[in-house]
Amino acid sequence: LNGEFGAISAIESLLPAPGPEVERWIGDDAAVVAIGGGRRLLLAADTVVAGVHADLTLTGLDDLGWKALAACLSDVAAMGGEVGHALVTVAGPPDTDLAGLYRGVADASRAFRCPVVGGDLVNSAALVVTVAVTGWCDGAPVSRGGARPGDLLWVTGPLGASAAGLRLLRERARGVQPPVSSVEVGLEGPEDASGDPIADALRRHTRPIPMIAAGRAARAAGATAMIDVSDGLAADLNHLASRSGVGILLDEVPVHPAATLAEALGGGEDFVLVFAAPPEAPVDDAFSSIRTPIRIGRCTTDPAERTFAGQPLPPSGWEHHWRSSG
Amino acid sequence: LNGEFGAISAIESLLPAPGPEVERWIGDDAAVVAIGGGRRLLLAADTVVAGVHADLTLTGLDDLGWKALAACLSDVAAMGGEVGHALVTVAGPPDTDLAGLYRGVADASRAFRCPVVGGDLVNSAALVVTVAVTGWCDGAPVSRGGARPGDLLWVTGPLGASAAGLRLLRERARGVQPPVSSVEVGLEGPEDASGDPIADALRRHTRPIPMIAAGRAARAAGATAMIDVSDGLAADLNHLASRSGVGILLDEVPVHPAATLAEALGGGEDFVLVFAAPPEAPVDDAFSSIRTPIRIGRCTTDPAERTFAGQPLPPSGWEHHWRSSG
Repeated sequence: LNGEFGAISAIESLLPAPGPEVERWIGDDAAVVAIGGGRRLLLAADTVVAGVHADLTLTGLDDLGWKALAACLSDVAAMGGEVGHALVTVAGPPDTDLAGLYRGVADASRAFRCPVVGGDLVNSAALVVTVAVTGWCDGAPVSRGGARPGDLLWVTGPLGASAAGLRLLRERARGVQPPVSSVEVGLEGPEDASGDPIADALRRHTRPIPMIAAGRAARAAGATAMIDVSDGLAADLNHLASRSGVGILLDEVPVHPAATLAEALGGGEDFVLVFAAPPEAPVDDAFSSIRTPIRIGRCTTDPAERTFAGQPLPPSGWEHHWRSSG
Repeated sequence: LNGEFGAISAIESLLPAPGPEVERWIGDDAAVVAIGGGRRLLLAADTVVAGVHADLTLTGLDDLGWKALAACLSDVAAMGGEVGHALVTVAGPPDTDLAGLYRGVADASRAFRCPVVGGDLVNSAALVVTVAVTGWCDGAPVSRGGARPGDLLWVTGPLGASAAGLRLLRERARGVQPPVSSVEVGLEGPEDASGDPIADALRRHTRPIPMIAAGRAARAAGATAMIDVSDGLAADLNHLASRSGVGILLDEVPVHPAATLAEALGGGEDFVLVFAAPPEAPVDDAFSSIRTPIRIGRCTTDPAERTFAGQPLPPSGWEHHWRSSG
C-alpha cells in the first residue's frame, strides 16, 4: 500500500495511543503488553497474499500456510520471546485447497510448538492468510531501539538462503537446474548436517524457520536491540539503526553457500536474526547449545553512517522480489 | 469457503490439539488460554472482506474498519470477557483509502477502549481486513456449551436492527426512502433515547456495537452459555443448543421497531448476545445499570427440539445476505 513503512507510520498517527500497560506497539517486531508479575505478553500479526508473497507456481499451498505462521513467530523470536498461541484466518476463493493450506499450518504448528487456537474462514477473490500470534517474556523483551554506539552486531546464521532458494526454484522451472534431492535440514542448526547448500536454500525458501532459540539466547546474552531479517539485511539494519539512533559499520556479511552477496544483503525472509550487544556480552556462552552467531560489525555514534566494507549500505529492502524480477 | 461451519470443523481435525493450558479453542466465540493466577486470556480473530461482508456502495470504508474491530470484540463480549488489545492487518489494492479505513478503526478503538497495538499492511487484489483481539477474564468465561435443560434464554436487546438498516440503505439507494436524519444512539442503552428506530437501525448496521457490558453482566448473573448473534438468532441459537446438547423452545422474540420478524430471526451482525441462565439466576440485579435483557424462552431436554411459538425454528443463518438478495 504505497510503501509499507511510510504507511505504517502514518497509520500510527491516526490511532489513539494506548495506555501505560502497552510498553511497545506499532513499529517494533511485536507489541509488548504488561500483564502483571513482570511477565509481558507479545502480540504480532502477519499477512501473506498468494501471488504477492508467494508464487504458487513454484511453491505449494502448504508452504504458504507454513510461511504465514513462521513469519509471525519470527516477530516473537526477534523480541527474544517464547512462543504462545496462534489465530489463523483465511480469506480465499471457494475452490481453495484448505486441506493443503492447513497441512502446512499444522506442520509449522507442530514444529514450533505453537497451537492454533482459533481463526476465521471467509470468501474472498484473493487468497489472503493472516496469522496473529501471542508470545511471552519474563522481564523486558529486546526492542529494535536499544542499540548503543560501540555495541557489536551479530547475525544468527548466514544470509541470502531464501532469495537463493527462490532463484533456484525459478531456474528449475525454466529447466536450467536439475531437480535437487530432498535433504533434511536441522531446525536452527548447530550447523546444517546435510552438507547440501542447494537443498538447504530451497528448504529455507519454502519452509523458513523462525529462530526462537537464537532469539532467546541473544536476549539472555544481553542483546540491546534485535530485528529479524524479513526485508533484507540492509533494510532491516537500517530499521534497527534508525530506531536506536546509531550508525552501522559492517565489516563482514556471512553469505549462505548457495547465495550471492547481493542476495545476502538484499534478500529477506530468511528470518535470521540480527542483534546488537555490548562487547563484553557473553554471546558465546548464551549460544553454547545452538549455532554460534557471526559478528558482522559494530554500532557507531554517527546515525548517518551506514557502511559495509567502506561502501554505503544499500538503503532499500527486497519486498516482493519475485514479482519485479520473476 | 463452502460452508463456513463444515470447513471449520474439518480444519479442527487437521490441526494438532493444544496442551492443557488451552481450555477452549476452535468452535467457541474466542479461544481461552490459562495464563496463571486464575486469569484467562481470550483470543479471537475476524476477517471482513469488501464486497462480501460490506457493500461499499452503501456504507463507508470507515464503517468497514469499525465493523472489523466491533465484530471481533463481540466475540470477547460473548465470553463475558474484558477488552484487551487489537492487531489490525489490511491486505488491499494500492489505491485503498487507508486514512478512511483507519479512521473507522480508530473510532471503534476509542469507543470500546481497545488499543490497536500492531498489525500488518500488504498489497492484495481484494480488500481484506483482519482483526485479532485479546481479552481477559478472572475466572471461567462463558462458553457456548454449558446450557442445561430448564435454563431460561435471554437476549440483550431487540433483534433485526442490522438487517433492517441494510434494507433501509438499499431502499434509500433506490430512492424508495427519503434520507433519514442522523440521530445519536447510546452505546448499549439503557433504552435508546433517540426515539427514531430508523436512525437506530441504520446506525446499528453501519456501526454495530459489541455488547461488552452486557456480556460481563450475563457472566456475573451466572450465565451457563452465551453466543453473539452474528449469523442470525436462529442459526446462533442452533450453535448454542448443539454445543450444549439441549433443546430450544422460544416463546417470544423481541423485534427491533424498524425490523421485520424474519429480519429478527434471520438477520445477523447485530451483536446482540443470547445467553442461558438458571431460573434462579439474578439476571435483573446483574443488569441493573444497563438495558434489561429480554427473556425469549427456555432450554429443554430434547436436543432435537428447536421451536418458536410451536413452529420449527429455521435452521440456517443469514450469511452475506446482501449479496443473495441485493
